Amino acid sequence: MGFRDYLAETRQIFDRLYPDNKITEIDYEGPTIVVYTKDPELFAKRDDLARQIAQEIRRRIAIRPDPSILTAEDQARAEIEKIIPKEAGLEDIYFEGDTGEVVIEVDEPSIITARNTEYVQEIKARTQWSPRIVRAPPMYSHTVKEIREYMRDIKQERKEFLHNLGVKLSGPPLVGETWVRLTALGGHSEVGRSATLVSTKNSKVLIDCGMMNVGPDADPWDAAPYLYVPEVQPLSSIDAVILTHAHLDHSGLLPLLFKYGYDGPVYMTQPTRDLAVLLQDDYIKVARMEGGKVPYESKYIREELKHTITLRYGETTDITRDMRLTFYNAGHILGSASVHLHIGDGLYNVVLSGDVKFEKTWLFNPANNKFPRAETFMTESTYGGRDDYSFTREEATETLVDVINRTHDRGGSVLIPVFAVGRSQEVMIVLEDAMRNGRIPQMNVYLDGMIMEATAIHAAYPEYLNKELREAIMVRKENPFLSQIFKKVETREQREDIAEDPESKVVLATSGMMNGGPVMEYFKAWAGNPKHTLVFVGYQADGTMGKRIQSGAKEVTISEGGKTVTYQINMDVETAEGFSGHSTKKQLLAYIATMQPKPKKILVNHGDNGKTAEFARLVRQRFNIESYALKNLETIRLL
Amino acid sequence: MGFRDYLAETRQIFDRLYPDNKITEIDYEGPTIVVYTKDPELFAKRDDLARQIAQEIRRRIAIRPDPSILTAEDQARAEIEKIIPKEAGLEDIYFEGDTGEVVIEVDEPSIITARNTEYVQEIKARTQWSPRIVRAPPMYSHTVKEIREYMRDIKQERKEFLHNLGVKLSGPPLVGETWVRLTALGGHSEVGRSATLVSTKNSKVLIDCGMMNVGPDADPWDAAPYLYVPEVQPLSSIDAVILTHAHLDHSGLLPLLFKYGYDGPVYMTQPTRDLAVLLQDDYIKVARMEGGKVPYESKYIREELKHTITLRYGETTDITRDMRLTFYNAGHILGSASVHLHIGDGLYNVVLSGDVKFEKTWLFNPANNKFPRAETFMTESTYGGRDDYSFTREEATETLVDVINRTHDRGGSVLIPVFAVGRSQEVMIVLEDAMRNGRIPQMNVYLDGMIMEATAIHAAYPEYLNKELREAIMVRKENPFLSQIFKKVETREQREDIAEDPESKVVLATSGMMNGGPVMEYFKAWAGNPKHTLVFVGYQADGTMGKRIQSGAKEVTISEGGKTVTYQINMDVETAEGFSGHSTKKQLLAYIATMQPKPKKILVNHGDNGKTAEFARLVRQRFNIESYALKNLETIRLL
Ligand SMILES: [Zn+2]
Ligand SMILES: [Zn+2]
Ligand SMILES: [Zn+2]
Ligand SMILES: [Zn+2]
Ligand SMILES: [Zn+2]
Repeated sequence: MGFRDYLAETRQIFDRLYPDNKITEIDYEGPTIVVYTKDPELFAKRDDLARQIAQEIRRRIAIRPDPSILTAEDQARAEIEKIIPKEAGLEDIYFEGDTGEVVIEVDEPSIITARNTEYVQEIKARTQWSPRIVRAPPMYSHTVKEIREYMRDIKQERKEFLHNLGVKLSGPPLVGETWVRLTALGGHSEVGRSATLVSTKNSKVLIDCGMMNVGPDADPWDAAPYLYVPEVQPLSSIDAVILTHAHLDHSGLLPLLFKYGYDGPVYMTQPTRDLAVLLQDDYIKVARMEGGKVPYESKYIREELKHTITLRYGETTDITRDMRLTFYNAGHILGSASVHLHIGDGLYNVVLSGDVKFEKTWLFNPANNKFPRAETFMTESTYGGRDDYSFTREEATETLVDVINRTHDRGGSVLIPVFAVGRSQEVMIVLEDAMRNGRIPQMNVYLDGMIMEATAIHAAYPEYLNKELREAIMVRKENPFLSQIFKKVETREQREDIAEDPESKVVLATSGMMNGGPVMEYFKAWAGNPKHTLVFVGYQADGTMGKRIQSGAKEVTISEGGKTVTYQINMDVETAEGFSGHSTKKQLLAYIATMQPKPKKILVNHGDNGKTAEFARLVRQRFNIESYALKNLETIRLL
Repeated sequence: MGFRDYLAETRQIFDRLYPDNKITEIDYEGPTIVVYTKDPELFAKRDDLARQIAQEIRRRIAIRPDPSILTAEDQARAEIEKIIPKEAGLEDIYFEGDTGEVVIEVDEPSIITARNTEYVQEIKARTQWSPRIVRAPPMYSHTVKEIREYMRDIKQERKEFLHNLGVKLSGPPLVGETWVRLTALGGHSEVGRSATLVSTKNSKVLIDCGMMNVGPDADPWDAAPYLYVPEVQPLSSIDAVILTHAHLDHSGLLPLLFKYGYDGPVYMTQPTRDLAVLLQDDYIKVARMEGGKVPYESKYIREELKHTITLRYGETTDITRDMRLTFYNAGHILGSASVHLHIGDGLYNVVLSGDVKFEKTWLFNPANNKFPRAETFMTESTYGGRDDYSFTREEATETLVDVINRTHDRGGSVLIPVFAVGRSQEVMIVLEDAMRNGRIPQMNVYLDGMIMEATAIHAAYPEYLNKELREAIMVRKENPFLSQIFKKVETREQREDIAEDPESKVVLATSGMMNGGPVMEYFKAWAGNPKHTLVFVGYQADGTMGKRIQSGAKEVTISEGGKTVTYQINMDVETAEGFSGHSTKKQLLAYIATMQPKPKKILVNHGDNGKTAEFARLVRQRFNIESYALKNLETIRLL
């Protein structure tokens, strides 16, 4: 893999195949080579042609129309509005100047797609834009809308960033001895602040940059991965960052990288991008509101966005001069991915599961565990400890239904602390179903703290959901998230009213581990009253308020504007096991037992209280595979 | 440990205790605070006073005469020459301006020390210098002489270096979470290029910086530790370097650190300093002569010297803001040390054995294995493999005597490849003894390649030798190294004459693993003739020419000025086991069994061919102590 001028090579190939190609520009766009042409014929053949040339040059190729041949956006919009029939229900039109595509969101795409060629051909002929007809998302997401607008605003900056990245990627890798190292920077032998570095002589790739689940009083620096060690300093020495999923224990301090000098790409799926921005924005807003320290400003979230490159599951991309990345479904939350790194030319392969659910859930398909190659596999072990038992989805539902009925019978309300993303949506589906089928009484379910917005983002990416939910969502009447039982809480007054109102109800509120967030307001109001119930449905990490309460604390002290207040806990405290987006121990073992290929080495991370070491031991015994639980700040040599 | 202005504090203490102290300067000299006074009375009380104040301020104090009160060196020299009686045999006088001491080398110090007070008082009174009467070294060492002169030349630069180091050491350590890491950069799971990093939030300390035992054709970069990894980049980020002993597999690339930006202190014993400079100088000279690549120029050896701080066994020094270093005898070669690092205020202790001999040898006392504290112990395992057997010194002598007699009987000569330092001196002692006692016939023993010079350095540091040898050396007639049987080879012509001369003889020549050096000339001349014998007395590392021949190669190819020449090996090839300066497996186990305190964790390095892993396993089984063999590029968290 010596130095190659891919741009010149690409031009030569085109000139040879299509002497009259009217190519106006060839440029790097990250790992892709983009070719702009004024020839509509060449552009029409783009997919076949790109495949053919990509095979020859061994780089991804994208053929685009030269902007000069596209109709101006305003004029094109007017044309399209005239062409689309009323009954299709046009909702939105947006232009993707980069690709020459225009996305047309309608309520009934079947009306157009049934007569695909006619409408599409007409739009193409009149505007030169290539139309893509999609169903308008069934729920409105402010986040999706804002991100789309922001990406349009920074088009030029992004073009430059992607050009420079492409140039960097085309440099020759260093020769000589090859090795692969993995360094634990956070989330090893613990849950929280996930951060793992995979490095070679040529590459430094950071996977995740999360934060500890700590309360608003904690110094966010204490919650950070070990970003100050020489392996990742200066941060500008990192070549690529990969985000497995949006949870803050994986994404929470990504913007910090940009604040302190990182300037490279961040790879993630598109839903992860939107959810991560939502959660990061919410995190700094809540922290500020609660008087906590804020480690970065919102402009660094935008910096992250600017540097984000989204990938679909199964799509392979060069991310450094000697690493290729492919994402696979991890089954954990919307867009969650397992990371497959192919290093060198067939030299070595590492798979990092990320947080992983190896079971079909109400929302997602089970995690993928089949890979082309995998010498080292790193797995989470949240529920992999000696004393962890497995609960089913059915048991989880039973418990929750039972708790709600009992609480309702005594005139109390149910408070469920949830992460905005993941457990919220599962619990919503279960509640909607139980209420519709009369297993629990009719009552309001209040959603407080970004839950509705997160749900809308789920609806925006139906292709990431399992088949049943995807189909239900697409039919407005069957979309469980649109049920009238769900009420969004938007103001402090609403929250106070809900807490005081004696009517029985269910409240889903963030944060999921009770480290601040609106859940605390309901808790403070209800903790002393034995008729109410607090139900945990997600993992409570060591050191969190949720863990203390779940473990049976009779009172807790909460700091409020400088002074600390003690709350007696008289309300019922329950746990509905089985909702978790993490694999049970059984599922973790089943994942490994059926994994293809069988890895040579298994690293275990993301487990509290010695669970990583316990699960590593179990893997050695059960599968006779070399297995280790690293401590943070340790480095293991893989090759 | 917050920031303290030690200089101001020291002055306050002096002003309080001795208002009329005539102090002219207080300065840092590395970890020591030096106080200059014009008051001869204060200076006279220096030892007691320094101890008292050091206890109060918790820093080492040295009280020195202000230079203005010392007689000029020329004049003082003349005075001293007049005072010392003829029969004492004055050999040399040198002034240590830093300390106000004058070292007076005489043949018969007892003549003066018997009447100590009188001569000493007279010299003091007439010159103000404090005389130190020592026995003149029994052998002349060019190296010792040159280093002494060089250190005098760079006095001013060194003063600045030590001042800056002292300022740096007085800074406050960073607070917060504390941790200790150990990173394998070379010599782990292999023998050669030893380099280990111990780091904390405050400190990066590199122990050894050696090279692989490779031939002159190899790229010296391939023989280097992994100095390009971020943990030690830039090299200026390293706070301190420690050298365990002079062998090139530990010291060989130390000058490279200075070439590429390191500018800090290097700690070692004084004999290690002299031997290391000798071996490094010889290494680059030989490499150049043999047309090999030279990784650094001799000026970087001088840079190393300039930054060297020597310590005696048992002397404790602050080397960073949170680490204290103490050297202990390692029994391996002259000046060889085990490293004890005390981290934080009683936080953690690491002992690194270095190359270690846990047996009294012809030259040295056995290694020390008693330490004040030791949570982690790192040991070499050169002979710690499953298939390594133990041989005694007596067996080694028997074999050598037998081989020499047999070779002599058939009119052949004996060639012994040796490192200049260590095995050479042991074999010399054995040969001198055997010849004097008639166990082998009288014949010449030729020493080729720095062996004589290395031997002279041994004689310059009698306090580092075992009692018997120290006493023998001090009596000219009994000094085995001065025996007439030993002949120094100094020119290529001599070498050719010796190789052609049919008289039976013994040749000790470097390098010890036959990777170039004069030994190769004798080998080339004698390899084809079955009457000669090649005897290995030291460890032959994997990948060396010596290892190939020892393993039974029937021919070897050697590159000579660009072309390769093949040599048939018909000469007898023998190994005299038991001479090694490395502990046998039995001795390694005995070291650990009797070590005080018992460490919690044992790391194993410096072993070829899986021996480190084998010995780590043995330690786990035998002692039930956590034990690991790191691979290069791995990092383990100790605390
Ligand atoms: Zn997660
Ligand atoms: Zn997680
Ligand atoms: Zn050695
Ligand atoms: Zn060694
Ligand atoms: Zn310097």
